[in-house]
Amino acid sequence: MIILGIDPGVATIGFGLVRAERNRNQLLRYGVITTPPGIPLSNRLLQISNDMEELIHAFHPDEMAVEELFFTKNITTGIAVAHGRGVILLAAEKLGVPVFEYTPMQVKQAVVGYGKAEKRQVMLMTQRLLHMKEIPRPDDAADALALAICHSRAATSLLNTDREFDPAKYDTR
Amino acid sequence: MIILGIDPGVATIGFGLVRAERNRNQLLRYGVITTPPGIPLSNRLLQISNDMEELIHAFHPDEMAVEELFFTKNITTGIAVAHGRGVILLAAEKLGVPVFEYTPMQVKQAVVGYGKAEKRQVMLMTQRLLHMKEIPRPDDAADALALAICHSRAATSLLNTDREFDPAKYDTR
Repeated sequence: MIILGIDPGVATIGFGLVRAERNRNQLLRYGVITTPPGIPLSNRLLQISNDMEELIHAFHPDEMAVEELFFTKNITTGIAVAHGRGVILLAAEKLGVPVFEYTPMQVKQAVVGYGKAEKRQVMLMTQRLLHMKEIPRPDDAADALALAICHSRAATSLLNTDREFDPAKYDTR
Repeated sequence: MIILGIDPGVATIGFGLVRAERNRNQLLRYGVITTPPGIPLSNRLLQISNDMEELIHAFHPDEMAVEELFFTKNITTGIAVAHGRGVILLAAEKLGVPVFEYTPMQVKQAVVGYGKAEKRQVMLMTQRLLHMKEIPRPDDAADALALAICHSRAATSLLNTDREFDPAKYDTR
């Protein structure tokens, strides 16, 4: 099964593609989609949409793992990221890729085995699990790979449970 | 010029179409796009995207006016609305409709002449300006019509200035 991990955003979207089997994960591709500042948000969203669709067409992922949004720090940033995230989820839905979401704590728990692990520990484990020579860079791409690994644990496990996207959380207005 | 006003959301998106001339506005159509609760967010976003594109194809608006997001009340709601708003902006950009945004205070100022007007005053003025027999319902559709009127004031005025979408506000990460 091919998993596409996505660290959502507007300026920088991390992506990581992993072929997941029960006992091992194989790195396929990782990187970032970027959009330039100084142009209208709607234009940046179109670029993200096009790049996401290209990525899905090129690698045919079976499932997508996206970071859940938490905004204790900066609401304005959160709102912008949510615009990008909406467009990312739309691309997945349009092209028939099921979406799963994970909190940063779930990712740490799955990758390092400890929900409060340091960012660097997550990166080192990601590097090791994917047999990479160096720690994946930039950070957004590393986060996306960790998301893909996290989902691979759930998706290839006999204990695969109810991690599917919970629409109730987003029920609004 | 045909203006499409949009009150963004995920469960309910208000829309209002107005033909704007220098001295008067003519109501074309108004209503709401709704998506059912209990299905994945990505699926609701696809429905919104399809309906928005259908609306644009049917009425060929020249410009779109969308409410700016403020979240003093509920961050979770704001995040969800921003997902929907991203998809709405994307539809406009894909189909070449320029997007303008207004705060609720700007809408009140433009429609009633007073930035702290009551919601009911805005609705009554909207009804009067568009020569409607009754106050437009539901609320989201009324808000969308008020947005369209607000933009018509800016767009058909000699004082038309820099109300265009400010990407800097959304520059993130």
